[in-house]
Amino acid sequence: MAKKLSIGEYLLDQLYRRGVEHMFGVPGDYVLGFYGCIARSKVRCIGTTREDAAGFAADAYARLKGLGAAVVTYCVGGLNIANPIAGAYAEKSPVVVISGAPGMKERRRDPLLHHKIRNFDTQRRIYEQITVASAALEDPLLAYHEIDRVLDAVQRYRRPGYIELPRDMVDVVYPHHTTAATLEDITDPEALADCIAETAEFLNRAKHVVVLAGVEMHRFGLRDELVQLIKKTNYPVAATLLGKSVIDEEHPLYLGVYEGAMGQPSIQRFVEQADCVLMLGSTMNDIDMGIHTANLDSGKVICANSDRITVRRHNYVDVPLRSFTKALLKAPLMRRHGPPLPARAYPWGVPPRGDAPVTVAGLFRAVNDFLTEDMIVICDIGDSCFGAADLVMRGRTNFLSSAYYASMGFAMPAAVGSQFVDCRLRPVVLVGDGAFQMTGMELSTAAKYGLTPIVIVLNNHGYGTERQILDGPFNDIHLWDFAKIPQVLGRGKGFSVKTMDELRAALSASMECHDCFCILDVDLDPYDISPALKRLGESMSKNLK
Amino acid sequence: MAKKLSIGEYLLDQLYRRGVEHMFGVPGDYVLGFYGCIARSKVRCIGTTREDAAGFAADAYARLKGLGAAVVTYCVGGLNIANPIAGAYAEKSPVVVISGAPGMKERRRDPLLHHKIRNFDTQRRIYEQITVASAALEDPLLAYHEIDRVLDAVQRYRRPGYIELPRDMVDVVYPHHTTAATLEDITDPEALADCIAETAEFLNRAKHVVVLAGVEMHRFGLRDELVQLIKKTNYPVAATLLGKSVIDEEHPLYLGVYEGAMGQPSIQRFVEQADCVLMLGSTMNDIDMGIHTANLDSGKVICANSDRITVRRHNYVDVPLRSFTKALLKAPLMRRHGPPLPARAYPWGVPPRGDAPVTVAGLFRAVNDFLTEDMIVICDIGDSCFGAADLVMRGRTNFLSSAYYASMGFAMPAAVGSQFVDCRLRPVVLVGDGAFQMTGMELSTAAKYGLTPIVIVLNNHGYGTERQILDGPFNDIHLWDFAKIPQVLGRGKGFSVKTMDELRAALSASMECHDCFCILDVDLDPYDISPALKRLGESMSKNLK
Repeated sequence: MAKKLSIGEYLLDQLYRRGVEHMFGVPGDYVLGFYGCIARSKVRCIGTTREDAAGFAADAYARLKGLGAAVVTYCVGGLNIANPIAGAYAEKSPVVVISGAPGMKERRRDPLLHHKIRNFDTQRRIYEQITVASAALEDPLLAYHEIDRVLDAVQRYRRPGYIELPRDMVDVVYPHHTTAATLEDITDPEALADCIAETAEFLNRAKHVVVLAGVEMHRFGLRDELVQLIKKTNYPVAATLLGKSVIDEEHPLYLGVYEGAMGQPSIQRFVEQADCVLMLGSTMNDIDMGIHTANLDSGKVICANSDRITVRRHNYVDVPLRSFTKALLKAPLMRRHGPPLPARAYPWGVPPRGDAPVTVAGLFRAVNDFLTEDMIVICDIGDSCFGAADLVMRGRTNFLSSAYYASMGFAMPAAVGSQFVDCRLRPVVLVGDGAFQMTGMELSTAAKYGLTPIVIVLNNHGYGTERQILDGPFNDIHLWDFAKIPQVLGRGKGFSVKTMDELRAALSASMECHDCFCILDVDLDPYDISPALKRLGESMSKNLK
Repeated sequence: MAKKLSIGEYLLDQLYRRGVEHMFGVPGDYVLGFYGCIARSKVRCIGTTREDAAGFAADAYARLKGLGAAVVTYCVGGLNIANPIAGAYAEKSPVVVISGAPGMKERRRDPLLHHKIRNFDTQRRIYEQITVASAALEDPLLAYHEIDRVLDAVQRYRRPGYIELPRDMVDVVYPHHTTAATLEDITDPEALADCIAETAEFLNRAKHVVVLAGVEMHRFGLRDELVQLIKKTNYPVAATLLGKSVIDEEHPLYLGVYEGAMGQPSIQRFVEQADCVLMLGSTMNDIDMGIHTANLDSGKVICANSDRITVRRHNYVDVPLRSFTKALLKAPLMRRHGPPLPARAYPWGVPPRGDAPVTVAGLFRAVNDFLTEDMIVICDIGDSCFGAADLVMRGRTNFLSSAYYASMGFAMPAAVGSQFVDCRLRPVVLVGDGAFQMTGMELSTAAKYGLTPIVIVLNNHGYGTERQILDGPFNDIHLWDFAKIPQVLGRGKGFSVKTMDELRAALSASMECHDCFCILDVDLDPYDISPALKRLGESMSKNLK
């Protein structure tokens, strides 16, 4: 008969069974006992420099692998990770936060223990705001079930969960636990039938259907169904920015990224001229809708996501995205032959001469030329992300960004997390100088574990996106010589890039370098921006007042 | 007649009137309009690399100046500052967080706007947990009063407050505002009389009284009263670690830092042998009480702090610390001549030879020798803080630490904040290598504004404090060559220090350098610790299980 697991062991066993082989975190005294427990388990804990970096790394890991976890100490660690976890909530990434806490025996008479903020439940109350399920494992009788409940909810809703583990509960064994049955998504079969009938009729009556695919098709494991659907129907498909690479971008029916006026005009026109837009796994958020520049009449939209299914102006409830997608595949949909797809446009124009300074367009063109199938592009927010929308990704889901929550500092730690999912997948990080100053020193963790990201710093000397909205000295930042960071870290290769020739040489040298990270400090004019950002800036200026 | 102020202008005007000349922050689109408003005001906004650094800087500014403020954007900025603000709550520092937010007009129909987590009130609900007062300025009719209310509460309780400013409210002017009367602390005169009578009788009957002074005597502006009290009564006085430097450490009645078994044994003995301990402005938190190693019988303690006055085992309510202290000064207290004070002990022993490796004790001895009155010592948590307890501070309140909340990463950004309070006060930062990796790159802000901290990295190759509790590879971190950071930042001087001679030379060179920051990478044995940390580690190991 198997040895009964302690609460700490059970938590790790459940995480491992659900696919978590690596966790990310920073130790601290209230979580040290659990770190000892991890060291004896099959799960490996990757030490980052800061807790927020652990959060972003676990988020990226979760996006690629289906579940991620971060391990932190009480409050001083737990609150440092609040922002990445809020981002995972907003963008539906299944990350579990495990926080150490003072032992139950220490809490008698409510003492002032270090790291305590107000009450012993303060941190948990905060996490209730930014997770789908939370539990403090304060009672051995309930602890095992609570672990099941939180992990089930995280996997079901693809949103973060919170587990607080008092340090004197880690090694407690409670003898009578049996795992509860996992709750299934509830599908109302009659609502589903109505919804599919109406959707099929709408699709079959339309002359020109376009699918707009979002990130949830990846999160909820529905990419195969998406490909089958367009194969069956011949519908052309665009992706949202957040969903970029949800489908192989070399697929003949793929249009490119649709994002209202921020996207390429030919794609915007094609999508907006359709008489039926089938949004699958995407939401009407402001970034994906080109900051209110999308012109999609709700009367011609079917919007299916994990919150609800909306057909034109009415909603179906209890019709989960998965049930909807699978049923739609079986529905009698006519094969369509709409207008010809717009030609693939490369919006970067003629590249600058080799000895000319690098431009934003020239940079993206050069990066696009050098991408291969074994790379994953990870973008920070700002022009790094908006400009990257036009890159052509080869293969499956190799584009990550925080395009909706839009937290600066996502990319570099996310690159660390992604390379633990698949060490053969080489991260290409596109990050602004401002965002790099927030979390870029997480290169330290890349150096520590021998990771090999290629980090391209779009150095436009400040907060470039904001200069387009309201300029002032507050958008200036102190200049770093990013290429010298390898000297501080004792590993890695740095390149200072000013001209197009230097850029191509540095990209080639980075490709050749297989045993360490590379960082390219690419000098850009502070006011040179991608066409997408130009349109966005103009749009946001209007919304500022 | 004066021009009526907009909501944004009124907020800045009130902050300036209450002493805020500098704020700290990172801009973002939802707060850019307010940044424009700041640029036209008397208040200067200092740009940091990250929001948490802005939080720590504003916290240090508040500790020294009585009020501080941080300005951030919605959620992605606001949640990045949650940890420093929670620390300010735990350690009673009056910091105001001002967060931008989507405009009220943008919120109709609850759209998915970028940076939004769950609902538009999610961030405010989080801040309700870690502030004494919070307000979202969503209604011009109430906004001016709400600003008054939050700022009054922050100043009254010396704890953080939260003001959320929708971007379309910044420039709104509401014509009929009159400032409300500030609420005063409530004192129950009869409870105060009883409390003072009992306290005075207790003090006068005791043979050997010791005062244990905490940080609240500084926060609540009662340092002069503390000095008057010991002058009148001749009571010897010790400080808590969090309260270190609340009294001039060269005062003849000053004993040193009391912190149970973590402190110097002669001070512990002297305090614990007293038959009456008058705790003023200090709490029984675990760090100040030497992690449960303090042996203070509650039957001989009077504990007066901003929460309550406790005489032995009963509490007085509605007796504020200020009223209590002022009334105690007027009470008929007998002048005492207790046992002679223990001789000032310098616990560092014989310094190592000049060519010998630097030891922790040798380091603190050298730092102590080199401190002058125009310096402020700012410690990160860990041995940087515990070891610093024995330094002798000259002058007034020139020691800052996060000794109770114990958040790593406090010191470097706090040094930035402190130098804006008084540019002649030179910060000496004591920080471990692990903590430096969290926020040390905030040296960038020192470089940007020409600040001159002397940063001493106690480089013991990992999380040294934790090695004493439970050692394992999770306590190892990647080594940085800290002395090369000036090359990345294009400013500053770096020193690699291995021997005592190199340490003294680097300290002297730093003293001579008046126009930039200096960073000393001091190589230490990973297991060399201060005596205080050794006792703490042993104590915490016992509490781990």
